[in-house]
Amino acid sequence: MPRQVDSAERRALIARAVWRVILRDGLESASVRKVAAEAGLSAGSLRHYFASQSELVAFSMELVIERVTARATARLDEGFAAVLDEVLPLDEERRAEVEVWLAFTARSRVDPALDAVRRRSDEALRGLCAAAVAEVTDGRLADSEASIEAEALYALVDGLALHAVAGDGADPSPAAMRAVLARHLERLGA
Amino acid sequence: MPRQVDSAERRALIARAVWRVILRDGLESASVRKVAAEAGLSAGSLRHYFASQSELVAFSMELVIERVTARATARLDEGFAAVLDEVLPLDEERRAEVEVWLAFTARSRVDPALDAVRRRSDEALRGLCAAAVAEVTDGRLADSEASIEAEALYALVDGLALHAVAGDGADPSPAAMRAVLARHLERLGA
Repeated sequence: MPRQVDSAERRALIARAVWRVILRDGLESASVRKVAAEAGLSAGSLRHYFASQSELVAFSMELVIERVTARATARLDEGFAAVLDEVLPLDEERRAEVEVWLAFTARSRVDPALDAVRRRSDEALRGLCAAAVAEVTDGRLADSEASIEAEALYALVDGLALHAVAGDGADPSPAAMRAVLARHLERLGA
Repeated sequence: MPRQVDSAERRALIARAVWRVILRDGLESASVRKVAAEAGLSAGSLRHYFASQSELVAFSMELVIERVTARATARLDEGFAAVLDEVLPLDEERRAEVEVWLAFTARSRVDPALDAVRRRSDEALRGLCAAAVAEVTDGRLADSEASIEAEALYALVDGLALHAVAGDGADPSPAAMRAVLARHLERLGA
């Protein structure tokens, strides 16, 4: 087998192992050693791909971006409200994604290597929110207003996601998150 | 000097040192060793108060809660929109507070010792948002609607704060944050 194919397959194998460990034990437990064990590789072999926990976390975040983008793209024809559903932590899978995102955001404050990935993910969601605002308001807002509304929707979505995973017993349920988003979009379109 | 007074003064001295280090170097740099140097104490002496970096972070968060509560209480007679201003990262000081909050929230996911403090702070802000909604809507919403609106306002405020400190160049400026909040409250009251 050519080395390049082998490497791509190896990365896919590792990606699935990373994700299983995160879902089961949380991001903080996803050490190079643990992921290696999960993937059936030696820690030394995994370090060929990830020199540090920081690179492993960056890779996890890349995985989250790929997964969310794939799901969101598949629902584009249902409109942007449906697409935003794919970002909120409405089930265990999406909750794990948001946990990765939260840990990643906090860490990217002090780890410049993670910053490019975070920036790309933030820009994608911000763009999605701008598109949702344009759709819901039928483009009848002035640019300055549309920009405020996009910022508001973007903050609302991330704020809900943050509260749902921070979790304090009174955190928003999936039903509550959907109700907040529906009410906001409805009032925006009125 | 009685030992109790001495201890309270010592804590206040340490609190000021913690805050200076966070403002200057960021939370991640606020090690027990560095804070001790800033306060003019030995690391061993500081460890009498904080056995670990985790306890130091919890103490920083307590400081943030105290500071925000004091500022918010002082503006209560201006209405809750003014009070919410005190939570958003509109200047360097409040930005540092939000950075502590973000790091703290991410860490409390995996450090149960921090959870009680985070929960108390979350509840305070949630309550503030509920009060703001009641004020702005003059209490004319049904309970279920008021609860959705409180959740939305709470998510909006924390989402804006998160984006402002995560910082990607396109982050909301203080003016943009105020505009988003003003527009949201205005539409809510209409």
